[in-house]
Amino acid sequence: MLDPEIAQRITKAVDEQFDDQLAWTAELVRRPSLRTGEADAQDLVQATLSEMGLEIDRWVIDSPELRAHEGYGPTTVDPSTLENVVGTWHPPVERGRSLILNGHVDVVPTGPEEYWSRSPWDARIVDGWMYGRGSGDMKAGIGANVFALRALTAAGLRPTGRIHVESVVEEECTGNGSLAALLRGYTADACVIPEPEDDKLVRANVGVLWFDVTVRGVPTHLRVMSSGQNAIDAAYQVMGDLRRLEAEWNRRKDEHRYFADTEHPINFGFGVIQGGEWPSSVPARCTFTVRAALYPGTSAAEAWAEIQRTLEESAASLGLPDAVVATPSGFFAEGYVLEEGSDAEAVLARSHERVFGSELESFTTPGYLDGRVFTLYGGMPCLVYGPVSEAIHGIDERVDVESVRRITTSIALFVAEWCGVEPVEDAW
Amino acid sequence: MLDPEIAQRITKAVDEQFDDQLAWTAELVRRPSLRTGEADAQDLVQATLSEMGLEIDRWVIDSPELRAHEGYGPTTVDPSTLENVVGTWHPPVERGRSLILNGHVDVVPTGPEEYWSRSPWDARIVDGWMYGRGSGDMKAGIGANVFALRALTAAGLRPTGRIHVESVVEEECTGNGSLAALLRGYTADACVIPEPEDDKLVRANVGVLWFDVTVRGVPTHLRVMSSGQNAIDAAYQVMGDLRRLEAEWNRRKDEHRYFADTEHPINFGFGVIQGGEWPSSVPARCTFTVRAALYPGTSAAEAWAEIQRTLEESAASLGLPDAVVATPSGFFAEGYVLEEGSDAEAVLARSHERVFGSELESFTTPGYLDGRVFTLYGGMPCLVYGPVSEAIHGIDERVDVESVRRITTSIALFVAEWCGVEPVEDAW
Repeated sequence: MLDPEIAQRITKAVDEQFDDQLAWTAELVRRPSLRTGEADAQDLVQATLSEMGLEIDRWVIDSPELRAHEGYGPTTVDPSTLENVVGTWHPPVERGRSLILNGHVDVVPTGPEEYWSRSPWDARIVDGWMYGRGSGDMKAGIGANVFALRALTAAGLRPTGRIHVESVVEEECTGNGSLAALLRGYTADACVIPEPEDDKLVRANVGVLWFDVTVRGVPTHLRVMSSGQNAIDAAYQVMGDLRRLEAEWNRRKDEHRYFADTEHPINFGFGVIQGGEWPSSVPARCTFTVRAALYPGTSAAEAWAEIQRTLEESAASLGLPDAVVATPSGFFAEGYVLEEGSDAEAVLARSHERVFGSELESFTTPGYLDGRVFTLYGGMPCLVYGPVSEAIHGIDERVDVESVRRITTSIALFVAEWCGVEPVEDAW
Repeated sequence: MLDPEIAQRITKAVDEQFDDQLAWTAELVRRPSLRTGEADAQDLVQATLSEMGLEIDRWVIDSPELRAHEGYGPTTVDPSTLENVVGTWHPPVERGRSLILNGHVDVVPTGPEEYWSRSPWDARIVDGWMYGRGSGDMKAGIGANVFALRALTAAGLRPTGRIHVESVVEEECTGNGSLAALLRGYTADACVIPEPEDDKLVRANVGVLWFDVTVRGVPTHLRVMSSGQNAIDAAYQVMGDLRRLEAEWNRRKDEHRYFADTEHPINFGFGVIQGGEWPSSVPARCTFTVRAALYPGTSAAEAWAEIQRTLEESAASLGLPDAVVATPSGFFAEGYVLEEGSDAEAVLARSHERVFGSELESFTTPGYLDGRVFTLYGGMPCLVYGPVSEAIHGIDERVDVESVRRITTSIALFVAEWCGVEPVEDAW
């Protein structure tokens, strides 16, 4: 149990530097870290971690070991552009428990910018919300990790356990960033990821597969349209077949711990489509991208096999050779469950209650989380726990500023109790 | 009536130079004249017409007059790249009727080349078919025009009427090429266009509209997919609304002369689609291209107004501001009817019967034809009449070589009777 006086000092320190934290987070939002374009944002994180006296490790995440891992997501980009940053705090004498504070710096595309109220990279605060692509998902979380540690220093304390502050890439598409950090040797007694989770703790989540489906048609002139097979129509037919599989998987939700009460845990998304090349020709080919979800306990390979069987039936009903070709193109990831009863969760529950004045709630989320890397492959409890947000992946994404303050305080208190703290003279 | 001896000489001349005609046509097919890339193919046509002693006119088809014309199709390409070629034969003394021999040099995209048995630009002849993109639609037709005239010369004859040999662009997307030629002043007493029409004469055809439809969605994270509106799904819903309009227009076919017996005269094609940008986001926008058909007698503007009303209903049912935005992006063209009883048709019927030994059949085609330009705006009978083809706009497009020979002969005989011929010493 954390000393109440220490807790108060830490809380005060978070408050006192909160304007700096918001300014830093806004600066991070203003650096558009779209896939393969994360370097500029990583520069800011790296500079700050370095200034804090952490040992910096920045590396291109590609490796044969990574590519061979069962949780590796086949990439469709040049891996030489993908760099993780990890800053490590080594206490003078390591007496406390170790910790990973993880966050992903990559953000998803904005969608049409004209649909936004202001530039997605503006990072303005309006009515208590900070706007911007990545504000919630999850640059506010990276800021919370960084400023939780800075608050300890500002409070005249330093952790007595080893801490790795991870700023990873690829969380939005493959999960290879966190996986690469684990394979590089970064392990600890627990992990915290401040994803935007409405001030709650993630108890269970789904795995995710990404794959491209190419549907072949029989092109003709539109004057004889009925003799052709429109690949765009055929693509929608295949989507319909996948929707039926999705419905079947949702019907199975009672068989899965923590999923029975989730309204629609399995979502298949058709996020991208491209087909045809000429308005007056029947399209020869249409490709769409699928994001499919799977329950924890089902391996990605098992889910993929079941999807492939569905697509084989689609192909057979279309009656063309190679009518449907599917290729993994990103996430190939199992879901995970945070088992109840861990010490880490108990410590977080205490920190949360102290800050929020209410019990820590846990819930099941139907989205992908890097937590699977630490839980499934790192054997450590992973606490995915972060601020209130709205419209992540949407238009006018925003994060609740007051929630960010509290989450930061809660994480700072968690670090202090989990790793232990000791007084220190020099501040970060 | 053409003198049988002259007819025989012309027929023989076509046969004697037919290998040259095939070689020339293959060379034209080998020059991929995709939209805005027609220059290389036009060079060949121009050189040949020039060598034949015709007066050459080559010009960029853009003009304020063209853009203001009711039959102009809004272009989506740089118009400065679009050049027509016309070669004009001026007889020493103009005694016969004048004629336009029109053909379009532009071809549609190939679709995925790996679906083809050989390169679409190979132009090989296998089992009596010449393969290649544009072989049927309509480089064999341009070859027929050119070599019909060359056959007259080879037979020691020259036409006594003015003849314009037109090699136009944009027939596959706007129809602006033929329209520009008309507006430049090229008119005549009749027009022949050897489109691939199965050795038949087109009696009536549809008009065509091209337009882009952009459908807006509400992007979100897939973990809350139900709160978002998938623009790709919404696009399919809008396509469904357009399909209902298509069905309604098809039900009206009995009201239109020459269309009652056509199985499905009105085809709406969705040839191109593009939507979304990230598999794990609900797509914010999806755009698809529509090719819609309309009956002759309905103006493009009337059809467009009816389509817009349908799209307004789609937008209302989607419940979003600007949920559906449609923009004309090519053809804005009325259909036409070749009125029965013209002298031109009578002359062609005689030529056809002499060559094929059977009556000239006419039919209704549900595809766009530049014939509308000459009929609606030039006030001349337009005979769209050409060889047997397969898979135009499709994979392994091909044209029947023997049919090309006969069509060439038939056109040569038509020219001889329509324009009249006189003996000449020097051959082209």
